[in-house]
Amino acid sequence: MAVASAGIELLAAELERQGVAAERVEWRPPQPGAEDALGTLALHSDAIARANDEAVERLQDARPLLRGIARAKDVIPDLGDHTLLHAGPPIGWDEMSGPLRGAIIGAALYEGLAYSAEDAWRKAESGKFEFAPCHERGAVGPMAGVVSASMPVWIVENEVHGNRAHCTLNEGLGKVLRYGAYDREVLERLGWMSDVLAPVLTEALATLEQPIDLRAMIAQAIQMGDECHNRNRAATSLFLRELAPAMLSVERPSTDVAAAARFIAGNDHFFLNLSMPAAKAAADAAAGVEGSSVVTAMARNGTRFGIRLSGTGSRWFTGPAGTVDGLYLPGYGARDANPDIGDSTITETVGLGGFAMAAAPAIVEFVGGRPADALSTTEEMYEITWAESSAFRVPALGFRGTPTGIDSREVLHTGILPAVNTGIAHREPGIGQIGAGLVEPPLEAFVAAATHLAETLGGAR
Amino acid sequence: MAVASAGIELLAAELERQGVAAERVEWRPPQPGAEDALGTLALHSDAIARANDEAVERLQDARPLLRGIARAKDVIPDLGDHTLLHAGPPIGWDEMSGPLRGAIIGAALYEGLAYSAEDAWRKAESGKFEFAPCHERGAVGPMAGVVSASMPVWIVENEVHGNRAHCTLNEGLGKVLRYGAYDREVLERLGWMSDVLAPVLTEALATLEQPIDLRAMIAQAIQMGDECHNRNRAATSLFLRELAPAMLSVERPSTDVAAAARFIAGNDHFFLNLSMPAAKAAADAAAGVEGSSVVTAMARNGTRFGIRLSGTGSRWFTGPAGTVDGLYLPGYGARDANPDIGDSTITETVGLGGFAMAAAPAIVEFVGGRPADALSTTEEMYEITWAESSAFRVPALGFRGTPTGIDSREVLHTGILPAVNTGIAHREPGIGQIGAGLVEPPLEAFVAAATHLAETLGGAR
Repeated sequence: MAVASAGIELLAAELERQGVAAERVEWRPPQPGAEDALGTLALHSDAIARANDEAVERLQDARPLLRGIARAKDVIPDLGDHTLLHAGPPIGWDEMSGPLRGAIIGAALYEGLAYSAEDAWRKAESGKFEFAPCHERGAVGPMAGVVSASMPVWIVENEVHGNRAHCTLNEGLGKVLRYGAYDREVLERLGWMSDVLAPVLTEALATLEQPIDLRAMIAQAIQMGDECHNRNRAATSLFLRELAPAMLSVERPSTDVAAAARFIAGNDHFFLNLSMPAAKAAADAAAGVEGSSVVTAMARNGTRFGIRLSGTGSRWFTGPAGTVDGLYLPGYGARDANPDIGDSTITETVGLGGFAMAAAPAIVEFVGGRPADALSTTEEMYEITWAESSAFRVPALGFRGTPTGIDSREVLHTGILPAVNTGIAHREPGIGQIGAGLVEPPLEAFVAAATHLAETLGGAR
Repeated sequence: MAVASAGIELLAAELERQGVAAERVEWRPPQPGAEDALGTLALHSDAIARANDEAVERLQDARPLLRGIARAKDVIPDLGDHTLLHAGPPIGWDEMSGPLRGAIIGAALYEGLAYSAEDAWRKAESGKFEFAPCHERGAVGPMAGVVSASMPVWIVENEVHGNRAHCTLNEGLGKVLRYGAYDREVLERLGWMSDVLAPVLTEALATLEQPIDLRAMIAQAIQMGDECHNRNRAATSLFLRELAPAMLSVERPSTDVAAAARFIAGNDHFFLNLSMPAAKAAADAAAGVEGSSVVTAMARNGTRFGIRLSGTGSRWFTGPAGTVDGLYLPGYGARDANPDIGDSTITETVGLGGFAMAAAPAIVEFVGGRPADALSTTEEMYEITWAESSAFRVPALGFRGTPTGIDSREVLHTGILPAVNTGIAHREPGIGQIGAGLVEPPLEAFVAAATHLAETLGGAR
């Protein structure tokens, strides 16, 4: 069966969702370079609909549980002592932006791979370190996202599909490694996190009768004003609430345990490094479904913004990282801002972050705009997503599920780009966060992805 | 200056708010018995406007801080060993409803004033106990609200006006004293709360550098989906988050401290008994402003619903307690429900609870209705309130402050009764909570209050 639909995109999308082939008659200005790919994909809309149903079903079924904490090299495959993972798609030292270089320097100093920042720079430049994207090792990292061998990382396990995802523990705001700062204060905090915070939390988690169900905790937080990317106040509170009784039974010096509790209580963003691997564990489960046009990763290395589709596996499609439009800390402005950076867009990939902004109108105090913008941002995202979240429901939308499963075809059909809210790093290494705001992925990444998907499916228009 | 306004109530109200005398030409069906009182009050609208400004300013300026915990008899004046405080306006044993009698029996057993339920009943009947409203001793109590001499109570101090308010610690849901249950499980829990929970929290609170600012914490919770009457999930999480590091430094058996943390973590309603005295501390500060028509207390004893106005001091104006319209636990229905009971309506009195439902659409899962009802409930309350909260701001309303300071005249002009959401107690003693829902105060209490206020101001129409 085939239906010709002139003018009403939503009808065509709905037909495809129902597995009916819809030949599209373009009525919006076609996205440059996308016409051929969309034409080919339209020939396969039955198969793509089935594939998308499968990918999104896996995404929704995933049940990420918090299993504990481990040294990165003990759980991340092939993580050598000289390997430094980073956010976003692959990149070499010569192309890295300031904050990513700063974080690389900091991690090298932290690991004892260099005796000074200059030494680290020279070694990085001369190929002494191996660089690889977090995403390619089952991990994610906020902002620069640098993970090195001895850093403690969360172990998040998707109970349903068996895959795992990892992320470092959140350092707090201000001068921190993930924003490219690497001075003594930053390194000492990393040491304390490894020597005190991680062991306390490891022991506390081990005493829980049930592992923490991160999907359930995020679902709660979404009903409490978080979107779990730039606002994690409720989730952090719920996490500490669940863990506090367990922390009290940890057999370590009470000053250490109290310091750990204070560290979490004092950092509204602590949960971000849990919402991210939870999202990664779900998105990875959705990857690799042949023919699926659903996005399974969005990530930025500070230079390029990359995406992956379920149907194109581990391949990256990239474009230049955008400039974040937002609010700056006093003394800083757009001229100081690094281009968009970080793996935290994995939250948007599963229907959180910018896609869940309607749940978190207070986010506008942080990223700019008016409360009504938060609502309209989420509403617009329904136009480019395949489904609605079965777990993440927004009170302000009558408990409608957040828009989930970005359909790369719809991005090209509508010209609507995924809404991302994010922090802003200073463009120079060693400084840190200077603001937060909204940013758009590059359209060309979606054109390239759809083109490649069309090639894999074959058949000219 | 005098303005004649025919038909537009809001205009008249606005003029009065601006201190302009507005002679009202009734256009809605007059509330039975209220015409004369409203006529007299209209002659004094200048003075009433000034008085209401003063009362609401005090209400808003109040800054309730959590100072600690003490035995009730050590901080509540004239609380003898045989005194049992209860919720709502004054009432004798002969008129008490089942759950209030059950709680009285439980408290008598807990204090060792009786050796059995039958013995307690006989002693209550024969005048061996002194009964008095919590509200008349600077306290508030949820549901039956019974406070006896040795129970631990929160000490909440309004830093700005110097007054204090008290409330017992929340017992959790199910079979608990405040719903009139008094079996061994209930009494043992009360004992544990007194012997373990209260000392742990007392020590933890003492180690905080700053006392907890309850207004600030409630303001946060309002932005996280609570309305701080029937939904206190965010506030409870924030409270435990703030207290957890301090609990870790308490020098008591770690099993006790862990049990205390688990008790709080396991009870989403734990914060209710803090939002109530915070509200009481603010409302008491607003009391006693000559000529003010603003409501400073709403409270139910399970038989009668009573209100107080700022301009009529400590006097109660009452009507029959209503029937709660809501959702029941499996196996229970309206036939089992006790009439409306408890001091928790002090939250509505200061712009929380039913007045803040727009902040907490998830509350409808608990009290019934649709999410949109939560929004419209708050919106309607602006019609009967003098001001908007400067502290409690609702994201879903573009951060508008909640309707605050119920003007008893507006209730009579509009016929709109304050929106109250509340728990439902079984009508028999010893059973407990069977549901939750919405209830209306009796109009006649507002008629009586306005009539008395008019008498104090004098001058026939």
